[in-house]
Amino acid sequence: MSRNSASDLSATEELSPSPPEAAAPPRARALVLVGMPGAGKTAIGRRLAARLGLPFRDADAEIEAAAGMPITEIFARYGEPHFRDGERRVITRLLAGPPLVLATGGGAFADAATRAAIKASGATTLWLRCDLPTLLRRVAGREHRPMFLNADPAEVLQRLMAARHPFYAEADVTVTCSDESLETTTRRVQEALEGAVPPRRLAVGLGERGYEVVVGPGLLARAGGLIAPVLPARRVVVVSDAAVAPLHLPALREGLAAAEVKVLAEIAVPPGEASKDFARLQDVLEAMLAAGLDRRTAVVALGGGVVGDLAGFAAAVAMRGVPFVQVPTTLLAQVDSSVGGKTGVNLRAGKNLAGAFHQPRIVLADTDTLATLPPRELRAGYAEVAKHGLLQGPLWDWCERHGAEVIAGDAAALTHAVLESCRLKGAIVAADEREESAEGGRALLNLGHTFGHAIEAEAGFDGSVLHGEAVAVGLGLAAALSARLGHCSQEWPSRVIAHLAACGLPARLADLPRRFALEGLMGRMAKDKKNRDGAMRFVLMRAPGDCFTSSEVPPEAVAALLRDEGAA
Amino acid sequence: MSRNSASDLSATEELSPSPPEAAAPPRARALVLVGMPGAGKTAIGRRLAARLGLPFRDADAEIEAAAGMPITEIFARYGEPHFRDGERRVITRLLAGPPLVLATGGGAFADAATRAAIKASGATTLWLRCDLPTLLRRVAGREHRPMFLNADPAEVLQRLMAARHPFYAEADVTVTCSDESLETTTRRVQEALEGAVPPRRLAVGLGERGYEVVVGPGLLARAGGLIAPVLPARRVVVVSDAAVAPLHLPALREGLAAAEVKVLAEIAVPPGEASKDFARLQDVLEAMLAAGLDRRTAVVALGGGVVGDLAGFAAAVAMRGVPFVQVPTTLLAQVDSSVGGKTGVNLRAGKNLAGAFHQPRIVLADTDTLATLPPRELRAGYAEVAKHGLLQGPLWDWCERHGAEVIAGDAAALTHAVLESCRLKGAIVAADEREESAEGGRALLNLGHTFGHAIEAEAGFDGSVLHGEAVAVGLGLAAALSARLGHCSQEWPSRVIAHLAACGLPARLADLPRRFALEGLMGRMAKDKKNRDGAMRFVLMRAPGDCFTSSEVPPEAVAALLRDEGAA
Repeated sequence: MSRNSASDLSATEELSPSPPEAAAPPRARALVLVGMPGAGKTAIGRRLAARLGLPFRDADAEIEAAAGMPITEIFARYGEPHFRDGERRVITRLLAGPPLVLATGGGAFADAATRAAIKASGATTLWLRCDLPTLLRRVAGREHRPMFLNADPAEVLQRLMAARHPFYAEADVTVTCSDESLETTTRRVQEALEGAVPPRRLAVGLGERGYEVVVGPGLLARAGGLIAPVLPARRVVVVSDAAVAPLHLPALREGLAAAEVKVLAEIAVPPGEASKDFARLQDVLEAMLAAGLDRRTAVVALGGGVVGDLAGFAAAVAMRGVPFVQVPTTLLAQVDSSVGGKTGVNLRAGKNLAGAFHQPRIVLADTDTLATLPPRELRAGYAEVAKHGLLQGPLWDWCERHGAEVIAGDAAALTHAVLESCRLKGAIVAADEREESAEGGRALLNLGHTFGHAIEAEAGFDGSVLHGEAVAVGLGLAAALSARLGHCSQEWPSRVIAHLAACGLPARLADLPRRFALEGLMGRMAKDKKNRDGAMRFVLMRAPGDCFTSSEVPPEAVAALLRDEGAA
Repeated sequence: MSRNSASDLSATEELSPSPPEAAAPPRARALVLVGMPGAGKTAIGRRLAARLGLPFRDADAEIEAAAGMPITEIFARYGEPHFRDGERRVITRLLAGPPLVLATGGGAFADAATRAAIKASGATTLWLRCDLPTLLRRVAGREHRPMFLNADPAEVLQRLMAARHPFYAEADVTVTCSDESLETTTRRVQEALEGAVPPRRLAVGLGERGYEVVVGPGLLARAGGLIAPVLPARRVVVVSDAAVAPLHLPALREGLAAAEVKVLAEIAVPPGEASKDFARLQDVLEAMLAAGLDRRTAVVALGGGVVGDLAGFAAAVAMRGVPFVQVPTTLLAQVDSSVGGKTGVNLRAGKNLAGAFHQPRIVLADTDTLATLPPRELRAGYAEVAKHGLLQGPLWDWCERHGAEVIAGDAAALTHAVLESCRLKGAIVAADEREESAEGGRALLNLGHTFGHAIEAEAGFDGSVLHGEAVAVGLGLAAALSARLGHCSQEWPSRVIAHLAACGLPARLADLPRRFALEGLMGRMAKDKKNRDGAMRFVLMRAPGDCFTSSEVPPEAVAALLRDEGAA
């Protein structure tokens, strides 16, 4: 028995400064306008700066001033690479100073190094998006510009749009502009900036397999811009299920298209645990390969835990491993299964017995998708948040105060619950990626699950008891067992059960819609795959934030508890 | 196109000094006798030393001299851990000096640290194995020994045998003794030492995933002692096929039993490529789990490439990864597929399209098993040896001189071919484990395979063209293509084709028992999974030891060559 508190783990860190996670409103930081020539970056940027009370700079003008010659001449004399280097230096210098509004040349944000420098500065980026006819009207009369010299402006613009739009799509905020007045567009841009809720970003510290968890609203619509920087190619297959796809695939599809991320195939599996088998895995793999998946194509999982586990396993084994992206759409998947890299399918011998550790390249937890969840599923997902609370400590206090808001679907509460759950889980995973710690480590995440898995298995996975509901009862039982064994006072099981019940979750065996045989539950726990050398393994608690694994729990104590709780 | 010669790779190293790989006869080194009390370590050791002209030492006597007190007193005063530390120091000191014959106390080689020290010294270890009745007769009258005090000697010996035999089994040579004269036993021991061909060991340098390839005769019989040190538990499941199991499973079973490695299940799949599918994978996994496989149980693959790929993939995904051991029984598997960690099954979309990189903990290439191979299979396996020769350089010269001996089944030639192939392949794998190098790297191992895979696929995997035969033709074509593109002189295709033909292998398209459609072959090559961005990718040669990958081969040149070679 060893003490392994999870509360002091710190292998995740919130990334800062980085544009999308700015908690402060965007105008407190630099604002960088990107887009095509003719999109109005200078005209709108100047007006915006006046409204925000910030200075305005035009990067091209600054470059000409620094170089002492027009940009056309820099290009002609030294070539584009030299110009881009100078442009990057000027932009980096400007963004290192006090907040301002900065209009950039059309090619700046399409340059990988300059784009990275802008993102790293913490500035908010804004793409002024215009369609071709609008741009053409606006550049009419600028045919003397070197870019249009001896060429058809429509052809030139079209080519540049195709090349640059995928990168512009990585901007934090996009505003589509048309032929309205500058004042109107400026007002719309200001509203968009004020209305934009920047997502939060967490880093899961797994070295070269490390990745970010992005949490916030509206992420599906920005999916392409968010995932493209971490993929080897703008090419994906999307795996979803027949229940989730109609709700969220259209938004994801648009979000990917905005960054020119090509979708080779959209593969929908039937919803539910039955899809996690080898037959379905093979179907998914054959469909991927038939669609032309290669080693640089990423698999995107859009859905709950079943879709994430199945699609992740497919990504792990397709051509011996291709990149993987998690886009969880259930609370359970957002707070638990999408982070940590566990993927797999079920065998007749048990759940998740075949699989792989395959970390995603990024996790997009779009909290808007939770609005479509049935309330019972939202509550079931909350059980894992409560578990993370008990493991972490302060998060438990937050749960007791704000759990009801999560259950009610409050956006801010949901975001906090997802973010803090991912932070806790990411830290544990970073410290014990493959669950190899002798004590503690990833096994701590099993709090409530030794009981929970047994309850689920006895109920036969027929939907009568959801995973999260079984976990909720398991949390109550784990707390009660901890108290019986003298590790914590009776206060804790009482508070755990009271809180879960207040959130509408079953917290005791008797709360479930069926009775359980003592022998059945004990038999399941004796065969739990987390056991070591035949001994049952439990996660016990001394207090929230002070939990530990133990293989020394007397089976009689477990049986007595279950009997007292109604198992016969 | 980049130059990537494989000949100067050096990420494998032959392990030295380490007992089993001694090329010199054992008596040129220290000889350490291990075994139970009463096995005759001192009596036989003394006689053996006289015959070998080496000094003899008894570790127990040296310990008593060093401590100035009898062993019983060291035990009584300071306890066993203290005694073992002293014993280890004395043995290490003795083995650091000139060659000698050393008898050790019964517990010495059962102590993990002492065993490691003896192995690290480079000494040859010899287990004098006696059955219980023999030991009992010999220790009769020694009831005053502290170990038998107040106890039944039979019970004490039985308990010690159970505890120690698994470790004694790690000795290099085992001689079973009975009630014959000391002279007779000594003679038998000397013969066993002279007849023992120590296996060769190669390290594949993959850091924490690094492992050894052990090559030599008689390894199945020693399997338990060889694999136990690298496994977390003495518990395995064996996967084989219905053709190989009757030939080699009995020897493996005994070799495992000798070191008390428990076999939870023996799983035989039908021989042939058809077993590499998801349905069979699931059957194997269910059988493993039904037999009680846990995360510390290893999967042992006994057979050719199909068994290795299937069992290795099962090990990669069972409970998200359990330890894996390769015991290849075909030349193809020994020189190629058992080293490098590629595992997988076939999909309808193509061969090996689902799988995992899962490195074995050790590879036991028992060259005795090759004696049971059909000659055609032996020849087919030799094609990969020739390929390694072309990649490596000096190995090609050896092939031209000694290839016929390999084909004839000569033991020394086979050992050299396997060892040098594994050395070359291990070095390439160590430098590019997951085949991520932009050029060269693991892709070099594809020499002859772009053509070979297309030929195999067109032939429909019906057994009319074996993989190695397709590769042999592919090597001829790759050399011819290299010459046509001006990378090497016509001498090389001529020599490659002549050598393969001399070894009884097909080396040109016309040597195969069927005709090939040009369009079919070109279509297959255009879809090869090693292609990048749609361009066909070939491995070309300037000379043996100077090969490189190229995506710049004009398809017309390939088509012209195939047409000239008879594809229509």
